[in-house]
Amino acid sequence: MPLTADQQAEIDSARDQTHATRRVTVPALEEILYSALPVLDHGFVRVIDYMGDDAAIVQAARVSYGRGTKKVREDAGLIRYLMRHRHTTPFEMCEIKYHVKLPVFVARQWIRHRTANVNEYSARYSILDREFYIPAPQQLAAQSTVNRQGRGDVLEGREAQRVLALLKEDAERNYDHYVEMLNEREDGTVLDEGKSGLARELARMNLTLNVYTQWYWKTDLHNLFHFLSLRADAHAQYEIRAYAEAMLETVRRWVPAACEAFADYRLGGFALSAKALAAVKKMLAGEAVTAESAGMSAREWRELMAALGR
Amino acid sequence: MPLTADQQAEIDSARDQTHATRRVTVPALEEILYSALPVLDHGFVRVIDYMGDDAAIVQAARVSYGRGTKKVREDAGLIRYLMRHRHTTPFEMCEIKYHVKLPVFVARQWIRHRTANVNEYSARYSILDREFYIPAPQQLAAQSTVNRQGRGDVLEGREAQRVLALLKEDAERNYDHYVEMLNEREDGTVLDEGKSGLARELARMNLTLNVYTQWYWKTDLHNLFHFLSLRADAHAQYEIRAYAEAMLETVRRWVPAACEAFADYRLGGFALSAKALAAVKKMLAGEAVTAESAGMSAREWRELMAALGR
Amino acid sequence: MPLTADQQAEIDSARDQTHATRRVTVPALEEILYSALPVLDHGFVRVIDYMGDDAAIVQAARVSYGRGTKKVREDAGLIRYLMRHRHTTPFEMCEIKYHVKLPVFVARQWIRHRTANVNEYSARYSILDREFYIPAPQQLAAQSTVNRQGRGDVLEGREAQRVLALLKEDAERNYDHYVEMLNEREDGTVLDEGKSGLARELARMNLTLNVYTQWYWKTDLHNLFHFLSLRADAHAQYEIRAYAEAMLETVRRWVPAACEAFADYRLGGFALSAKALAAVKKMLAGEAVTAESAGMSAREWRELMAALGR
Amino acid sequence: MPLTADQQAEIDSARDQTHATRRVTVPALEEILYSALPVLDHGFVRVIDYMGDDAAIVQAARVSYGRGTKKVREDAGLIRYLMRHRHTTPFEMCEIKYHVKLPVFVARQWIRHRTANVNEYSARYSILDREFYIPAPQQLAAQSTVNRQGRGDVLEGREAQRVLALLKEDAERNYDHYVEMLNEREDGTVLDEGKSGLARELARMNLTLNVYTQWYWKTDLHNLFHFLSLRADAHAQYEIRAYAEAMLETVRRWVPAACEAFADYRLGGFALSAKALAAVKKMLAGEAVTAESAGMSAREWRELMAALGR
Repeated sequence: MPLTADQQAEIDSARDQTHATRRVTVPALEEILYSALPVLDHGFVRVIDYMGDDAAIVQAARVSYGRGTKKVREDAGLIRYLMRHRHTTPFEMCEIKYHVKLPVFVARQWIRHRTANVNEYSARYSILDREFYIPAPQQLAAQSTVNRQGRGDVLEGREAQRVLALLKEDAERNYDHYVEMLNEREDGTVLDEGKSGLARELARMNLTLNVYTQWYWKTDLHNLFHFLSLRADAHAQYEIRAYAEAMLETVRRWVPAACEAFADYRLGGFALSAKALAAVKKMLAGEAVTAESAGMSAREWRELMAALGR
Repeated sequence: MPLTADQQAEIDSARDQTHATRRVTVPALEEILYSALPVLDHGFVRVIDYMGDDAAIVQAARVSYGRGTKKVREDAGLIRYLMRHRHTTPFEMCEIKYHVKLPVFVARQWIRHRTANVNEYSARYSILDREFYIPAPQQLAAQSTVNRQGRGDVLEGREAQRVLALLKEDAERNYDHYVEMLNEREDGTVLDEGKSGLARELARMNLTLNVYTQWYWKTDLHNLFHFLSLRADAHAQYEIRAYAEAMLETVRRWVPAACEAFADYRLGGFALSAKALAAVKKMLAGEAVTAESAGMSAREWRELMAALGR
Repeated sequence: MPLTADQQAEIDSARDQTHATRRVTVPALEEILYSALPVLDHGFVRVIDYMGDDAAIVQAARVSYGRGTKKVREDAGLIRYLMRHRHTTPFEMCEIKYHVKLPVFVARQWIRHRTANVNEYSARYSILDREFYIPAPQQLAAQSTVNRQGRGDVLEGREAQRVLALLKEDAERNYDHYVEMLNEREDGTVLDEGKSGLARELARMNLTLNVYTQWYWKTDLHNLFHFLSLRADAHAQYEIRAYAEAMLETVRRWVPAACEAFADYRLGGFALSAKALAAVKKMLAGEAVTAESAGMSAREWRELMAALGR
Repeated sequence: MPLTADQQAEIDSARDQTHATRRVTVPALEEILYSALPVLDHGFVRVIDYMGDDAAIVQAARVSYGRGTKKVREDAGLIRYLMRHRHTTPFEMCEIKYHVKLPVFVARQWIRHRTANVNEYSARYSILDREFYIPAPQQLAAQSTVNRQGRGDVLEGREAQRVLALLKEDAERNYDHYVEMLNEREDGTVLDEGKSGLARELARMNLTLNVYTQWYWKTDLHNLFHFLSLRADAHAQYEIRAYAEAMLETVRRWVPAACEAFADYRLGGFALSAKALAAVKKMLAGEAVTAESAGMSAREWRELMAALGR
């Protein structure tokens, strides 16, 4: 359970309050505001705040007052046009803020997206929670033999058991030693009055990379789409993809028209190179084309054939 | 008058609507939401949307749930601490969006602030309004003789009259020729059916740099404070300072505690160099110090003496 | 002529000097280092400095020491892979600095690319040169009747003559008045000892948007490719495209393998949406597809058919 | 020893080569180019490439050709002026690229500086080295009792021994298990042919936060100064400060005038708030001032008194 009773009570309390505003609101997103969407074994994603909606994208594109006379259908068409032609600045006019709990090794991938604002739980000041990511058995994949970056078959039997046991034991033991070095329990009580306790900023180095941290992460819709196009993709590591998919759900509630255009042009699309475009033209004309005649590498050709379903 | 009747009607209509939200709201800012605050002769600044409040800064700094048990006074103290020690990331958790109407030469200074999102009125698609910035007589300053960047005394008499006449006539004439080259009036009607009309993206080059443009401009509070520290400063050109001061008013309504800390630590403060700090220590010890003995240039020394009121 | 004799002498002098360095160098780019490549009627682009080469991209991708054992052909293949899969960070490891002279209305488009470093000639301190962009007759296009953003046929006869005359006269007259208001010639001599002269930061507002300015502009290769993909594109306004094309030539000299991959995957490529991909699959299977059956708008369908050469 | 024999040979080979360039060069920095400056127990910092020098800052500030007639002393004065008045863009015209080996918990602090380009060693593709940061005994500090973020006295005797033993044993054991789960040694040989081996992207989560990683990190001088002002500061955690200090040495070689201005205005300076400025004025006038009469908190007052050496 990712949330303590206190945390859940605070969320419930925040959700109970309603304020009056002149700003645009998105009822479908308000429905889940503050609520924790569970991810992995102890993680979550919560929408904390947002600015703008589909109409704000259109408004910025038109740089005109209000929403006026245009029908929703026309707005959706304009949003599709902006997405297709990579007119990205109107999408920057929407902003969203998340509260995320995630393992440190996922946080290290995530933070490479630089156009965002972040405040992370500081283990220089505070003691981290005793929570670690332990993969579910069906996620315990072997190294891929064809792709240096990917996962292959799922480990089974004794090898799988041994891996799970090691991950759990090492994480727990290192946390025990973290507490011992700090000479302080998670609740702030001292272990041994005769000891000084190691500084928190040092003791944390004994923790494993699957320990959970948390942060507030705020970004605009354009950069969020970029994040999702990389992290909700099949090539992304499963653990960060799980977060991206939860966030994609929140975006669907928030800006449905933009999200549909994103799904069509980015997530489900395929970028043809000049060579691939020439090859497709020849195929459409009934000519035989090979990797060699197209001037493409074997790998590139496989990717193209896979995309075209051949 | 910066707003047309249509625009004012749209603003009034937007202001009439109230929605329910679970998000934090700032009633003092809601009061002026969408309203145009006049700047210069035809410009304005309007707050279009915002995210967060003083408590959101504190929340991010604590990376904890809700606002809980802390008293306002403690929050203000934490905000002062963050500002003093340049812990800037919590201020990035607040976001604001403005609609601004401003002369092009001001827009050119403004746009140098890169950490912001912008959608500007496009003169490739649309015809610009016939509105130009003409300085008020008391702003018609001579080139400073002591500061290569600044303004000196106000021009008077015939020289002032001549300058105002030139600015007005040239702006009007060039706009007339803009319309003639476009072969199209602002209302879209054609001037001469026998002509083609120059492309808008070309015709605009005939306009003067005091023509008004407009944009949506969105940024976070940290970057807004940076903008204001440079542009609400006495060294800033008067015309952009006028915008910065109007925005400073909106920030005061929005995040009063952060704005007070900003005024104390940035706007009203003074940064001592190592040499200046050493000089101040000596002065406090009753020693005589000169620019020479302090190792400072004459200009730097003057700036220090001015700050210390000596 | 974009360069004065003094400027040309300084360039020649800089080009005459050779230094020893342990850094990687690119002889083909050194050949044109500092030289002004002419653009439009008075503008230019000059490469002032650079960091890295094709091998630096590969080095960053491998995060390993030196260039070692890999053959050039393999490097080119890795660069193609990085470009195809949008692994953009290795391209950020190369940096280039340009000195550019360009009309203000072009500078206003250019500056929207935020991930770059810029120092522009300041008309608050200095007097701008008497140089304006006047389009060549073959660039004097009418507003497009099918595309709100584009150009149509070239103006001819008396309409063309009138437009050119207006552009020249207005720019010259406004510049004359700029000098009169400043009460100071370009060479610094005073016009009328009895006058004060308007502050430079104010007088510049009388200039037209086709006046030339200049700046140093520095960016990394990834962001430069993004700039070029938008500005060397057929949809870009001709005047900024002229600059992009000159810069593309410098990039070809600098990082030939990366530039070839860029031309294949970005400049010459075409991004299929999910709907377009499905349509292409059907076409390849010999099925008839229409805009309607593909669920695409008429405009989108036209764009797809054009790309496929149908 | 942070470098293997192979790595040292590659560095020596790179250092042996000299190329001819028309670019500006900095002989004092070339002297140490590619060389590894040791940091902590297994880390290092190496300058890999650079662009610009002190004169490039001046050139950008003047936006003029070449270096011309100005004397070095005038250049240094201009650089001081730019630093004092926070005219930061000319400092962005210099760029530097480092290769850094550092513990993961340091990398996590470092990466929060967003305006930089990074390529990190990927533990999805490759196996990390068996190297961990173990603090030197004199760095084994207790948690500060007065500062929630800082370090207090150094641990001694059995508590210190126990901490060191735990850090070493846990890091080594977890690495052993990492290898076992991978079923692959650092040299690529397989441990047990009957096992599949866990995917690298998963196995790495068992490593401790003091394991070493490495990256290429490239930034401009303005952002580097910002990094150094925070990380070479006494409030920074010792481990990242050790890197900042090594980098500060490289900057001193590279841009000595800018570095001296930085030391004077940033590193050694003190920012007075409006209240502190008013208090200093009163003190200089011989008036008694207290925290209360100055309207400052006890903590703020202590910081001011400490800066003024009272």
